Order: sequence, then structure tokens, then C-alpha cells
Amino acid sequence: MKALEDRIQQEGLVLSPSILKVDSFINHQVDPAFMQLLGREIARHFQGKGVTKVMTIESSGIAPALFAAMELGVPMVILKKQNSELLKTDVLQTEVVSYTKETSYLLTMARKYISDEDHILLVDDFLANGEAATGALRLIRKTHATVAGLGVLIEKAFQPGRAKLEGQGISVFALARIGSMDESGIHFLP
Amino acid sequence: MKALEDRIQQEGLVLSPSILKVDSFINHQVDPAFMQLLGREIARHFQGKGVTKVMTIESSGIAPALFAAMELGVPMVILKKQNSELLKTDVLQTEVVSYTKETSYLLTMARKYISDEDHILLVDDFLANGEAATGALRLIRKTHATVAGLGVLIEKAFQPGRAKLEGQGISVFALARIGSMDESGIHFLP
Repeated sequence: MKALEDRIQQEGLVLSPSILKVDSFINHQVDPAFMQLLGREIARHFQGKGVTKVMTIESSGIAPALFAAMELGVPMVILKKQNSELLKTDVLQTEVVSYTKETSYLLTMARKYISDEDHILLVDDFLANGEAATGALRLIRKTHATVAGLGVLIEKAFQPGRAKLEGQGISVFALARIGSMDESGIHFLP
Repeated sequence: MKALEDRIQQEGLVLSPSILKVDSFINHQVDPAFMQLLGREIARHFQGKGVTKVMTIESSGIAPALFAAMELGVPMVILKKQNSELLKTDVLQTEVVSYTKETSYLLTMARKYISDEDHILLVDDFLANGEAATGALRLIRKTHATVAGLGVLIEKAFQPGRAKLEGQGISVFALARIGSMDESGIHFLP
């Protein structure tokens, strides 16, 4: 998506060959009208595919997921990051290790908001190593729901997230695919 | 707001005289179209008051804040909850102690997204003891920005949040004000 690539070029900060900050319009400060365009674009890609719920992970995925869910006319479910295990039968949890941030957390969902009849569209801001998305898929499988795909704003295509997910049969859609980043700039894949 | 009161009556779970769960449409599963109505209602209350930015705290405030910011045509800034102090000059932090959850965190904001010319509307899902909002106000004061007010979806009016904020001259607007909750039901204030 040209508009997103342009904005990443203008405002994105390349902190290292693998770290891109887009704090000014996606992660910390959010441009609502632009985010609506992005959320709608993800929704349009998955329109007509029977999506019953949009799922995201707190908190940077919430804004695009909300607009995608709005466009598709379905509810959004926000997976929570917990630090400790919840000993409750009505809650599903799975551990996610984030190599990027060198942290781990328990991705948590109330069982009642996903049923075996749901067809889930996952939405997030970034796809890099695919750890968070893979964790979400583990939770979805426990509910016997099915997956329409993963829609992200920005894919770091030089990291293995897409391969991992496509290897599990998940359809991946990214609005901007970064092939490489360095001092010379950010290079997008078509 | 009648529509919100009705939905709280239908779907809210009173876990104790002070704890209300609205997981099915606000905190965990989100109804996007309904949330847009709520965000717009907050925006309308503060329309014409010169708001330049909407500020919220991750993660349950993001959805209503996003729609309020969209309606007002201004950016949204998401304050982050960090566990450790960031030793950076471009970041502002303040400790918030949550009595409800018996936890504390460092509310964190990049300095560059708020300037002394900003007039900030704070938006959150709940107002109870006002700890989070008071923390956000401390950060805003450090930037010398001014505050248009606080807009929340649900106020627990039997807790001291409103009094604390109004005592500091902050205008507080709540879409639903709960006077008391018990086994007999949820009782709203006009």
C-alpha cells in the first residue's frame, strides 16, 4: 500500500537493521483517519471470506483491528498479556517468548468469546518473527475455531514470521513489506 | 447515556460491590459500532473546546479514545505502562499505584508527542479512584500542556475519582455514572 510505504519512509526511524520505530502514527501517537484507511484495507482483503471475529493482541494491534472489525461488521477480541498464570477454567493461556524484546508473557483469552463456529481474522501492527501470531493460533486451536488469516500493517520480510505462518497454512496479508533497512533507507518488496 | 446504561444492565457482571466486568463489549470483546457511538458522544461533549490531542492509557481506553480522536479530527497518544524505569531524556514517566489491582506501573510517554501548546482530552474506559488519570495529569503538567477534561465510559461514582480530579480543576464527563451495585442490580445516577 503506497500511502503506508510513503509514511514509513517519511516518519519511520530505523534504529538498527531489524528495528523500525513508527511511534509517530502507529504505536505511540496514532493518526486515527490514516489508521482507518489501513484497517479498511485489511478488511477489504478478507471481505467475503466468512470472518466472524477479528482478534488482536494488546496494545498496538488494537487500533487497526478495531477499524478492520468495524468495516467487516464483526466484534473484535483483544488477547491480553498476563505476567502470571490464571488458574481459571474459563480462561485459555499460552506462553509467548518475544525474542525482539527479550521478554515473555502469557497470552490470555476468555474462552467464551471464541466458539468452534468462529472464523477468525488476526490483525496486528507488525509481523517479524511471528511469535505473537503463533501464540494466538495456539489459543484459537484450543477453541476449535478456524482462521481466515493474518493481516498486518508492516511485515519485516527479512524475518521468518511469514514462512512460519504460511507453513501452517495461514494466509498472510501485509500492507507494507520491508525487504531490508539500513542507513541508506528502507527498501520495500512489491 | 441511556444506550450504555441499558447495555451495562444487560451484560455487566457485578463481581462485588465495587467490581463490574464489562468484558463482553468494552474490555476484552469490543463491539466496534457501539464503541464508535460512545467515542463520538465523548467527542461531542468536548467539541469546540480547542482539543488538540486525545490521550489515553493502554489498553482498554484505546478503543473509545480512537473514535473520540477521529471525531475531533486530532491525533491520539497512548501512554504506555512500563515495569522499569527508562533512563532516557526524551521520555517522561510517573508511578501509578492501582489499589483495585494491587499493582503499580510506570506511566510512560515520549516527550515529543505533547508540547506546551497542546490542549489535551483524556479518555479512558473507567473512572474509579482516579489513579491512572491523576498519573496522566502529572505527565501532562511536566510538558506544560493544558487539559480540556477527562471523558470516560463508566464512572463508579461511589469511589473518589471524580472528587479528586474536580478538586484539581479538571472537568469530568462520564457516559454512565454508577451510584451503587449489589445483588439487587446496578443503580445509575442521573
